[in-house]
Amino acid sequence: MRIMIVGASQGLGRAFIEGLGDSGDSLIGVSRSVPTRLIERAGIDIEWIAADLASPEPAAAKVAKAMAGGKLDVLIYNLGLWESRAFEPDYHFLADSPAEIQRMVTVNVSGAILLIQALLPALLSSAAPRIILTGSTSALPGHGRPEVTFSATKFALRGIAEALREGFRDQGLAVTCLQLGYLNTEDDLAVPLERAAQRDEGASIPLHDVVHLVRTLLALSPNTYVREVVMPAIGDTRF
Amino acid sequence: MRIMIVGASQGLGRAFIEGLGDSGDSLIGVSRSVPTRLIERAGIDIEWIAADLASPEPAAAKVAKAMAGGKLDVLIYNLGLWESRAFEPDYHFLADSPAEIQRMVTVNVSGAILLIQALLPALLSSAAPRIILTGSTSALPGHGRPEVTFSATKFALRGIAEALREGFRDQGLAVTCLQLGYLNTEDDLAVPLERAAQRDEGASIPLHDVVHLVRTLLALSPNTYVREVVMPAIGDTRF
Amino acid sequence: MRIMIVGASQGLGRAFIEGLGDSGDSLIGVSRSVPTRLIERAGIDIEWIAADLASPEPAAAKVAKAMAGGKLDVLIYNLGLWESRAFEPDYHFLADSPAEIQRMVTVNVSGAILLIQALLPALLSSAAPRIILTGSTSALPGHGRPEVTFSATKFALRGIAEALREGFRDQGLAVTCLQLGYLNTEDDLAVPLERAAQRDEGASIPLHDVVHLVRTLLALSPNTYVREVVMPAIGDTRF
Amino acid sequence: MRIMIVGASQGLGRAFIEGLGDSGDSLIGVSRSVPTRLIERAGIDIEWIAADLASPEPAAAKVAKAMAGGKLDVLIYNLGLWESRAFEPDYHFLADSPAEIQRMVTVNVSGAILLIQALLPALLSSAAPRIILTGSTSALPGHGRPEVTFSATKFALRGIAEALREGFRDQGLAVTCLQLGYLNTEDDLAVPLERAAQRDEGASIPLHDVVHLVRTLLALSPNTYVREVVMPAIGDTRF
Repeated sequence: MRIMIVGASQGLGRAFIEGLGDSGDSLIGVSRSVPTRLIERAGIDIEWIAADLASPEPAAAKVAKAMAGGKLDVLIYNLGLWESRAFEPDYHFLADSPAEIQRMVTVNVSGAILLIQALLPALLSSAAPRIILTGSTSALPGHGRPEVTFSATKFALRGIAEALREGFRDQGLAVTCLQLGYLNTEDDLAVPLERAAQRDEGASIPLHDVVHLVRTLLALSPNTYVREVVMPAIGDTRF
Repeated sequence: MRIMIVGASQGLGRAFIEGLGDSGDSLIGVSRSVPTRLIERAGIDIEWIAADLASPEPAAAKVAKAMAGGKLDVLIYNLGLWESRAFEPDYHFLADSPAEIQRMVTVNVSGAILLIQALLPALLSSAAPRIILTGSTSALPGHGRPEVTFSATKFALRGIAEALREGFRDQGLAVTCLQLGYLNTEDDLAVPLERAAQRDEGASIPLHDVVHLVRTLLALSPNTYVREVVMPAIGDTRF
Repeated sequence: MRIMIVGASQGLGRAFIEGLGDSGDSLIGVSRSVPTRLIERAGIDIEWIAADLASPEPAAAKVAKAMAGGKLDVLIYNLGLWESRAFEPDYHFLADSPAEIQRMVTVNVSGAILLIQALLPALLSSAAPRIILTGSTSALPGHGRPEVTFSATKFALRGIAEALREGFRDQGLAVTCLQLGYLNTEDDLAVPLERAAQRDEGASIPLHDVVHLVRTLLALSPNTYVREVVMPAIGDTRF
Repeated sequence: MRIMIVGASQGLGRAFIEGLGDSGDSLIGVSRSVPTRLIERAGIDIEWIAADLASPEPAAAKVAKAMAGGKLDVLIYNLGLWESRAFEPDYHFLADSPAEIQRMVTVNVSGAILLIQALLPALLSSAAPRIILTGSTSALPGHGRPEVTFSATKFALRGIAEALREGFRDQGLAVTCLQLGYLNTEDDLAVPLERAAQRDEGASIPLHDVVHLVRTLLALSPNTYVREVVMPAIGDTRF
């Protein structure tokens, strides 16, 4: 299985590089620059492509070119910017700069669309192509967050998923949105789950849980897929 | 009541200019260029601002400047581009040009966010500020349409609405998404409703119905608002 | 137009009797017992049928029989029980009695289904049949309320609406769910709207607003309908 | 871990008995009668309780009594009746008998609520209590099916889940709705997945996939849970 993770340099994306795939699979990380030291995993081929989705058209072309000739089984679009003051008590929409707003929309929406468009031919040559979009609970009604642009772009991913399924159902394209709550991005997979689960007094979601779930999604038969996974922290009062 | 309609030169936007407001109210139309002949309505002041939301930052600034000093009670963002082959039998996502995709995302998402941001101070000086976003049934799960970018940007409007309500609830900001199905944009309000309802063998929604509904939304007490109106054609098999 | 309102003796149902229809229309109220003094409205014929939906099968048959021979244009199922301690600070699911739970499920779900089934032949003989189900914001994800049975039964109405539209789309059956927030049921339509809007420090929805909206729904062309109206109080922090 | 599966005698419920839990865990099956031969699994204790949820109040009391004194970690309510002609081409709502409608509502809604209520004390004594409700894609907007009562009762499960999470968030109660599409209930877990995936020309979902997913849900850290899993067949044109 050949799996591409876009936005792979840190946090959840890095955890996908650490935890997805089995012996014989290959992983392709995409981030703005190639990490100085690539993760190594026994039996798994790990490649990297540098591309800056802030310029989505050339970035998409670059990634597709680097893929040329091969099939792609799974594309995980895990890239998503948020406002510089997002999730802070002093966040205020009226203080967001127009430049930041436009950059977020470009990377989170146009970037996703153009990269998927560029990679669809490679995906559709897979017997069971899957796209996974890292959304957020901010893509759900009643999410209770005031970040306008982040919310807009995460809702947009759901729209991308809907239309892709409609356009490529006959080719068996599966598209899954992961609507994730507050993640614990401090502890990588090397930290035991029990310990990671202690951080933030248990109020954040260990990356282990997300990786475990995505591993399961990738192991489903080609007959089915999960459209949407809504996964908040257990004590999150918004859900 | 002072009502601004963005995307007012034709179709539904033009019908809003023809049909919203009562004697003593003022309407402000926004479109790329000022129409050569403005609609005239007895007792209603109608102004026009030319602004091209394809350049959202200067356009938003221009509109806000033209508004300076006054309050705004209602902002209707009715502007929305779609793919050049959208809703045609030969539409294919892989044939959408990257330039078109980016232009749609800019106008439909960044344009909406930046214009709302620029106008919020004027809106919040109203006793009962209301924003109405013209969405689409393509903003709903299961919409059954393959247009990826249109779907993404219409879902994005829902995200904008969610976050705005959260950020400005204490100021009483009402935000409504109109999720409209296939509209009959051939017949303007001057055509009697009964006749407009005959077109397309009854399979499209007369603009009269939408205008009537929005008039009702604007007449609600400040205690309430309608979050979302889902309004498909009666025979639309998707809903 | 012939309009039946089930659950018409008080609150919103009574306001529908007071405010829907125009000269030449007829209204049929349904409640457990016929009010001692019926509302009178000039030019509008008002009838009443006594039926107790706690026994839904005979009640449905009784109402249908009283309707026999005529068409019905609009059926409003406005009947809905809630838990005796619902919306109180001391509400606790574990304290709900099994008898109460079963009674609520019977009236709110079985009652709605069986009455609709019994009246569908009369509705389908209308040129533009409409069913309106009085739901609640408790039918929406993230509603933030702990009343299990009320929530279950209000979600159930959405399921009824979905399936009815699918089964009777070709006959043009419109089904609308009204998802209403906290209502001001103290002030009837005779109280001026401005005054009703003052009650509860503006935190509840005047019945006038709901009646106005439903009047608009009933005036739409037969080409369209509104699937769902989500109408919370403006300051309701859950939405 | 102690796991109860209600509706365990056949289909998906039986597959849960065959496939959930690991050595040291205990499973409790609930169905109308105790199977003549219980499934045996090495290292896993399997008990059975006979209870007929068509009489939900005594059935819930009976199950709770049989549980008395112990904790319960997971409750899976997998019981759900459908109309006798459901999913057949000749299904017609007007032909459903009132008795059948009421029986479905009783088992699917009242049964679920009363059993959960009776078992909550045992569940809340678990460190990480989980409830899983077997819903259906018929619980989702746009499901495209005309079965009114089935749709109503499956939507109702979502309402149960919402309210339970709100009422018992502080105790860490996780509630998950499984919205499953067309299942292949012909092939049990003993049939290899690859073979099960061939049935119905690949148009139905092997039980293996559902069991695998639920195993993952039960292995998540107590910090999180999945609110809703929407899992249709890959080619299902409704989603």
